[in-house]
Amino acid sequence: MHKLLLSTSVGVLALLAAGAAPVAADELEALQKDPKQWALPTGDYANHRYSALKQITTENVNKLAPAWTFSTGVLRGHEGAPLVVGDVLYLHTPFPNIVYALDLNNEGKILWKYEPKQDPSVVPVMCCDTVNRGLAYADGKIFLAQADTTLVAIDAKTGQKVWSVQNGDPSKGATSTAAPHVFKDKVIVGIAGGEFGVRGYLTAYSVKDGSLVWRGYSMGPDSDTLIDPEKTTHLGKPVGKDSGINTWEGEQWKTGGGTTWGWYSYDPELNLVYYGSGNPSTWNPKQRPGDNRWSMTIWARDLDTGKVKWVYQLTPHDEWDYDAINEVILADQEIGGVKRKTAVHFDRNGFGYTLDRATGELLVAEKYDPAVNWASKVDQDKSSPTYGRPLVVPKYSTDKNGEDFNTQGVCPAALGSKDEQPASFNPETGLFYVPTNHVCMDYEPFRVSYTAGQPYVGATLEMFPAGNVLKDGTTNTGNFIAWDARTGKIVWSDPEPFSAWGGTVTTAGGLAFYGTLEGYLKAVDLKTGKELYKFKTPSGIIGNVITYEHKGRQYVAVLSGIGGWAGIGLAAGLSKSNEGLGAVGNYKGLAEYTALGGVLTVFALPQEHAASEAPAKITFP
Amino acid sequence: MHKLLLSTSVGVLALLAAGAAPVAADELEALQKDPKQWALPTGDYANHRYSALKQITTENVNKLAPAWTFSTGVLRGHEGAPLVVGDVLYLHTPFPNIVYALDLNNEGKILWKYEPKQDPSVVPVMCCDTVNRGLAYADGKIFLAQADTTLVAIDAKTGQKVWSVQNGDPSKGATSTAAPHVFKDKVIVGIAGGEFGVRGYLTAYSVKDGSLVWRGYSMGPDSDTLIDPEKTTHLGKPVGKDSGINTWEGEQWKTGGGTTWGWYSYDPELNLVYYGSGNPSTWNPKQRPGDNRWSMTIWARDLDTGKVKWVYQLTPHDEWDYDAINEVILADQEIGGVKRKTAVHFDRNGFGYTLDRATGELLVAEKYDPAVNWASKVDQDKSSPTYGRPLVVPKYSTDKNGEDFNTQGVCPAALGSKDEQPASFNPETGLFYVPTNHVCMDYEPFRVSYTAGQPYVGATLEMFPAGNVLKDGTTNTGNFIAWDARTGKIVWSDPEPFSAWGGTVTTAGGLAFYGTLEGYLKAVDLKTGKELYKFKTPSGIIGNVITYEHKGRQYVAVLSGIGGWAGIGLAAGLSKSNEGLGAVGNYKGLAEYTALGGVLTVFALPQEHAASEAPAKITFP
Repeated sequence: MHKLLLSTSVGVLALLAAGAAPVAADELEALQKDPKQWALPTGDYANHRYSALKQITTENVNKLAPAWTFSTGVLRGHEGAPLVVGDVLYLHTPFPNIVYALDLNNEGKILWKYEPKQDPSVVPVMCCDTVNRGLAYADGKIFLAQADTTLVAIDAKTGQKVWSVQNGDPSKGATSTAAPHVFKDKVIVGIAGGEFGVRGYLTAYSVKDGSLVWRGYSMGPDSDTLIDPEKTTHLGKPVGKDSGINTWEGEQWKTGGGTTWGWYSYDPELNLVYYGSGNPSTWNPKQRPGDNRWSMTIWARDLDTGKVKWVYQLTPHDEWDYDAINEVILADQEIGGVKRKTAVHFDRNGFGYTLDRATGELLVAEKYDPAVNWASKVDQDKSSPTYGRPLVVPKYSTDKNGEDFNTQGVCPAALGSKDEQPASFNPETGLFYVPTNHVCMDYEPFRVSYTAGQPYVGATLEMFPAGNVLKDGTTNTGNFIAWDARTGKIVWSDPEPFSAWGGTVTTAGGLAFYGTLEGYLKAVDLKTGKELYKFKTPSGIIGNVITYEHKGRQYVAVLSGIGGWAGIGLAAGLSKSNEGLGAVGNYKGLAEYTALGGVLTVFALPQEHAASEAPAKITFP
Repeated sequence: MHKLLLSTSVGVLALLAAGAAPVAADELEALQKDPKQWALPTGDYANHRYSALKQITTENVNKLAPAWTFSTGVLRGHEGAPLVVGDVLYLHTPFPNIVYALDLNNEGKILWKYEPKQDPSVVPVMCCDTVNRGLAYADGKIFLAQADTTLVAIDAKTGQKVWSVQNGDPSKGATSTAAPHVFKDKVIVGIAGGEFGVRGYLTAYSVKDGSLVWRGYSMGPDSDTLIDPEKTTHLGKPVGKDSGINTWEGEQWKTGGGTTWGWYSYDPELNLVYYGSGNPSTWNPKQRPGDNRWSMTIWARDLDTGKVKWVYQLTPHDEWDYDAINEVILADQEIGGVKRKTAVHFDRNGFGYTLDRATGELLVAEKYDPAVNWASKVDQDKSSPTYGRPLVVPKYSTDKNGEDFNTQGVCPAALGSKDEQPASFNPETGLFYVPTNHVCMDYEPFRVSYTAGQPYVGATLEMFPAGNVLKDGTTNTGNFIAWDARTGKIVWSDPEPFSAWGGTVTTAGGLAFYGTLEGYLKAVDLKTGKELYKFKTPSGIIGNVITYEHKGRQYVAVLSGIGGWAGIGLAAGLSKSNEGLGAVGNYKGLAEYTALGGVLTVFALPQEHAASEAPAKITFP
């Protein structure tokens, strides 16, 4: 057995010692079962973002307080969350993507700092702020996907680079914003750049040395997509030959988008990796007739080969930028009296989907945002020719309305009823806890031509609140909801003045935690949604809350730092109402709450702040 | 009586209503007597930085916790402290010198934001980071001294500019870093730029309309210095004609330095303003023979006319950059059985001075840092020809050693046994609480020529710790001390691994608060120095702690944001060891504790975090 480079808890060491299978895989399986740690960006392979810790409860959470804080030294949007492995917290920043290893035994003292050298010309190529969604850990290494698409493995103990590999070409608009994910012995990495006509792909590299294991494109010939025309199914039927080409006009698939910048999940039993692909390029639907497969699609790929088991295209021929990149949460649920291995996905298009994750069968598809109006429903009649497709309301079809026509009042807006901000699944309540947007838009497509490395967008849009004015005079543009994925129903919904753009975590203490754009870290009762605690962190939160235990004390941690799509407004050049970074976006009034920042706040229940031993006293005569 | 533009506490309004004399003066006198507010950058005219609040005590301070936080949206060194007037907290930032008005009724919601437009070319002219030491308040206006020397009066209620005036010429190296101070109806403003050969001056403007009332230079003819050759005294004797010229060679006084970027105090009874002037330019003493009056001098000027009552030059013919800009604290003390109106000053040169502030008589001058070695003592023998002068130890005389000679082991270093970080006076203990440096240097002067707007420094230096290695392996480069200014003795001294570069406040709760370069906010027992509480704020602290009360709750607030001279290392171009901003200076190991930041942390004792009313619940069928 290889030498562990990193200190880990005794429990993990014991589990590891008992293992016989490949080390990295063993280590990760053990780590994600240990609630004291937060070793995966998603908490676990299934993307539950659930913690069995229960020192902090509905009864005592109102006593929560910051225990220590750490400024990252970088401003702009801080998405993602730190990792906690053993006694170390690993923290990332937006561009320039600094990585810090912070000592939990010493209130965040810096053990090492890794600062990549990147060409800053990548910054203007990033569509929606300079965000990075975090790190992965395995086998004594920390994995960072730099903005410039370099994937680097860093020695978790020393901060020295072990290996690196280039995953894309930023000069053509390819960038990285997603966290790498390690499943067993592979690092899975996505790509961003749908607004630059990048043809998306997911890539698996070897944890050990960074060698490429497989790469599956979102469109193109079967040899690129790793689709088997006979075995790969879409809603139960084989997809047929070159399905990634034949719903495109000419060679448009070559600049077809379908990028992969969200979260990935993994089912070890089925050995399948799940994720969603983004918008077809351009945003002008008139310009790219056809279903544009496999943009806007949920994918199930074999971890070892990348071969596609099934696909499900949520929004064929997208007309509104409803990327399907949001996380796919794997939960076993009883539906109609039958225990199902389900995959649950809250799509940008406003529908919450429950699928059978073994087969891709559609089980539930209902609106999780009451504002959604672009489609009346998803056709769930298996005998219907439009089975599985959303039934588009003609007046909101920006394709039918055509180029240079301003289609008004489409809900949700392009940023979706939810974007990358991850939901969580709580096994005790059996419910999903979903931070949502509640925003609509006017959308006007226009003709563009493709130039490598240049924006390839083809639409202007204007977003506005879907909700009403709240008591305090702000407008409801977000909701934090509890969702029953077995029935497709909202259980409760807490209105937020601004989009809930921070990812959630739930705990065995009966709590859901999430952050708000104003900067509040909030804790609510899982059962009722009642707000039990809030604290104003230094800047707006677009990061994801995590929890861990260290030396017997449960901590809750979150990055604040306003930015991202929510904070930057629409990507430069896309929006008439874009007020630039300083104006923190399109949320009227948000700039009254927060300025740019970049701070980790770590909370705990108070204990006697036993000041560390007083320093030696020097006395003078 | 004029209409108050700002909400103030009932007590203050009552006091104001009772007043008959000029409004601004009344208002400020009332505000500084109201411990609920922190309306002056120094707490009060006397620079006591003392608060009568006592909700937080030595007994309960260990339960302190952050109540809310606010990121300023700016990185680099955050010196100074916010003001609290009524329900509003006014916050400044380093360049670009944004001012925020934050609503204390709503956890820091931004009421308004004022962002000056400044030519960024001023930044490289700032010697020691882009710091700004805070704001002043009077008469419904907030006063900001921008980096580019613009003094602006901002309507405290609306954030709109009322008036502005240019106080210096940044193209010649003049900048502003000091907080403006309002005494009665005048705004007192200093100037920085001693490293660019700026001839320093202090200026009084009318609070009402910004018109210039007087300007007193640090050197030059009596008409410039506002010195009366017959009436102005130095150590009890009239200074004689053109004393600001005749200790300089030729016209060197025209680029003589003596800038005024520290803190100012005011005695309403004597109607005198107190402050210190900085180093003579250049740092190469060989190049400017003579005492270089009145650089390195404590001044007492009449508030209404600027005329000089007395001066005391602490370090004649400086050879080490021992600016005298540190604050002058006005306290009434019994010395040798006689009640004296004293002025207490902890000089960069390592001596703590107690003067009679009416006459400038020297009462006490003793080392407050045991490392001090450049002078054996200050001659206190009134019959001596060197009365009042430090007795320089020849081996540490960089003038005697001459140009291009490396004088080694001088203590303190150029940044002094204390720099701008303000001490405080506690009337209950009768002691002063002083954050100090414990650093030495090697100093090598070299010949330079003056070019307007270019650095005019003329020395390289290398600093190193004066202290020993502490238990945790760090080196003691700072001490937080209690000082008896009646006897000139250290009462207790707490070693700090890094210079204590944050300003102090003491309270009737028996506590002294200060911040550390690692980012700790600390509370210690006034009587013993015992550390009772510490909290790791997001970044290193070079700001000054304040305390105030709002709605019955006592708060403690401090800016974190590493930088300043301590954080930036030596000013660009001055130091062989200058590692630039990222390396946070010369303090070995400091970069292991903190990265850049800019966050206000507001502390209070916990109360039931009664979550604000839960938002309305939306239920779905």
